[in-house]
Amino acid sequence: MTRLILDVDTGIDDALALAYLATFDTVDVLGVIGTYGNVSVDTAVRNTSYVLERLGFRHIPVIRGSSHPSWARCFIPDAGCAQFHGTDGLGGFGPARDSSSSNTAFPDNFSDNSGSDTVFSRNYRSLISVGGYALDDVHANPAVDSFELSLTTDSASSIHADDSSADSVSEGVRFIIDQVRAYGFDVAVVATGPLTDIDAAIAAAPDIAGKLKLVMMGGTLTQEGNCWDLTAETNIIQDPEAADRVLHSGADITMVGLDVTHQCLMGSDATCTWREAANADTLGGSAGNSNAASARTASSDSSPSASDVRVFLADMADFSIAANYKADARLFSQGMPLHDPLAAAVAVDPSLVTCINLPMKVELETGDFHGTRGRTIGDPAGLIDPNAPRIHVALQVDSHRFVSDFTTRIKSLQ
Amino acid sequence: MTRLILDVDTGIDDALALAYLATFDTVDVLGVIGTYGNVSVDTAVRNTSYVLERLGFRHIPVIRGSSHPSWARCFIPDAGCAQFHGTDGLGGFGPARDSSSSNTAFPDNFSDNSGSDTVFSRNYRSLISVGGYALDDVHANPAVDSFELSLTTDSASSIHADDSSADSVSEGVRFIIDQVRAYGFDVAVVATGPLTDIDAAIAAAPDIAGKLKLVMMGGTLTQEGNCWDLTAETNIIQDPEAADRVLHSGADITMVGLDVTHQCLMGSDATCTWREAANADTLGGSAGNSNAASARTASSDSSPSASDVRVFLADMADFSIAANYKADARLFSQGMPLHDPLAAAVAVDPSLVTCINLPMKVELETGDFHGTRGRTIGDPAGLIDPNAPRIHVALQVDSHRFVSDFTTRIKSLQ
Repeated sequence: MTRLILDVDTGIDDALALAYLATFDTVDVLGVIGTYGNVSVDTAVRNTSYVLERLGFRHIPVIRGSSHPSWARCFIPDAGCAQFHGTDGLGGFGPARDSSSSNTAFPDNFSDNSGSDTVFSRNYRSLISVGGYALDDVHANPAVDSFELSLTTDSASSIHADDSSADSVSEGVRFIIDQVRAYGFDVAVVATGPLTDIDAAIAAAPDIAGKLKLVMMGGTLTQEGNCWDLTAETNIIQDPEAADRVLHSGADITMVGLDVTHQCLMGSDATCTWREAANADTLGGSAGNSNAASARTASSDSSPSASDVRVFLADMADFSIAANYKADARLFSQGMPLHDPLAAAVAVDPSLVTCINLPMKVELETGDFHGTRGRTIGDPAGLIDPNAPRIHVALQVDSHRFVSDFTTRIKSLQ
Repeated sequence: MTRLILDVDTGIDDALALAYLATFDTVDVLGVIGTYGNVSVDTAVRNTSYVLERLGFRHIPVIRGSSHPSWARCFIPDAGCAQFHGTDGLGGFGPARDSSSSNTAFPDNFSDNSGSDTVFSRNYRSLISVGGYALDDVHANPAVDSFELSLTTDSASSIHADDSSADSVSEGVRFIIDQVRAYGFDVAVVATGPLTDIDAAIAAAPDIAGKLKLVMMGGTLTQEGNCWDLTAETNIIQDPEAADRVLHSGADITMVGLDVTHQCLMGSDATCTWREAANADTLGGSAGNSNAASARTASSDSSPSASDVRVFLADMADFSIAANYKADARLFSQGMPLHDPLAAAVAVDPSLVTCINLPMKVELETGDFHGTRGRTIGDPAGLIDPNAPRIHVALQVDSHRFVSDFTTRIKSLQ
């Protein structure tokens, strides 16, 4: 039995990772923490609950994680994430939106004390993360077009800032601490978003570092990054400080980065087989057979096919396949990279990847003598200190075996 | 018998690499090409000849290679190289300087057509390489303080530029072509400077690419670089375009970069043993024994000890040990990195390193969608094209075995 905790920012590929794990009888998911990243924390929690419901896993607790990076006071999803995941995070196939809900994650203790119409002073603006970049940064590009407006209207009056109060540990962070204390290396945390929750858990309970097994999707060592500068990877740029602390924490960490996820591409040939399988089962069902898929879903969708979870997954995956192809027709000509599913798979079967063991760091600033903010690279300390904590960095992957297994397992979801 | 051609920009560690190879009875050095890099091409040729003479290898031909990067029209050594190698390239222990010689490498066909006192137009200035950076670049920092002055005085009138004329292939480049055509994989080219010569050889004789075995000191993949931005490595930043073309040429290339050279540190404990050995032999010689070292050297130095090639090597190495320590007291607390000697050693004994085979590229521009100029990184083409040329990138090294062997062999130089 593989015991897992997931920490996700759901996200299309997070959803696919959840679906993949759902196919294993031998996997026990203790809980799923939704955190900010591809989407706001609220959206991540909602999407995660929705996906688990579609998968028939209502019994798995969904817990709220961090709402913003450790370096920022609040978080706004950026247009880049919306491009790859849709503004709802699930390619437009997520749960119906509560119109009053915000896609911007402001912590409860965030307010503006100035009383002026211009709610955020320059100081505050630099502490607002837009997809990992400070609002002042040229790369900050909110997914919510009306964001700037909302900051200067009455709606902003409900945003409270209090520099003196620190965030309390979130329910999700508390869950990580409790489970790792209970199970140690007998549970693995699979983190597919920023490492803010993991960092907060270790900060609040340093005793867990030595018994924390973490499989993280994030970073890149031997391939270019997927942020503007081609250096940083998306999950790391969200919270480089947290990632750097986690990499130095002494936890047992496997880094599943772009080195390997960009080798695991899934195209529409795979999603076609999911749709065909769903259709075949639906036809079987309409001929009088009661099938598990129709019994599982609570959707009121009248199309028997669309109610099948495999069609839902195919719809999302096709959105991602198209978005990746549009972003880089050469690199992603064979499909979408299975980032988060690969990390989940490695947690179940480490033999999928070959790793080097290397002390790692995250560069925190850009410029001379600093490198590039968000870059994951060997820590020079490792060259001189034989005891520096070593990260298992996955550099090679049996991509054919994984993509084939992934596709087949989703196809046979019942 | 290991047949080698060396392409060096001598340089302290180039000199140490030559000395190391001189200790092998099983190594046949066909010729040594001196090129720009740590120093100007003229200085590299002079230093190489001097070192070979000190080693008693006057029979090995020293050949003039490229005088400037492929992207530039002329080359000026930068202050960074002078910091690590001295302005003469050999830590002040090189041959006596001809006062009329320039340390700036202007190609014969480089002139100023403007006729004005300000010799270089802005256009020309951007084509002057100062240690890999265009003269306009904030990082361009000539080692020769009087350079700016010299450009606007009469001495500059001898500099000729002619945009229409291409450089002819240098003698060194011709040597590479001829030897690789003659020996194929039965000779290895060890390049410890910029890859300009190798690139020029392949451009002039594309037929050699498929039978060229190259061991290059340069680049870095899993460790930070040693240029300003901590991303590029010095040899690559000199001529990123040439390096990128070479990496894609299809040649059989082993990249010995900072990943491994920064693990091979040699401290003054080693140079002490060289001095002690030299002293012991000198004392033996003064007691009536004729020894090889005193017979070999043509130096007029009256100190018996200083005339020993091991003392010469120790003097240079100690300069480098001190310079590296001053630059980074933490990283180089155990000594100087044996960059070029390790590349030479790998050409003789590939088992010293463990490589991954990865298609590689050099990023040519800095900025969004480009990465960082001079960065050596996995080529994304390799993710989608199984036939992309793969570079053997050394990631692990038996550093103890190598440093120990290196130290012992130099100590026993006779």
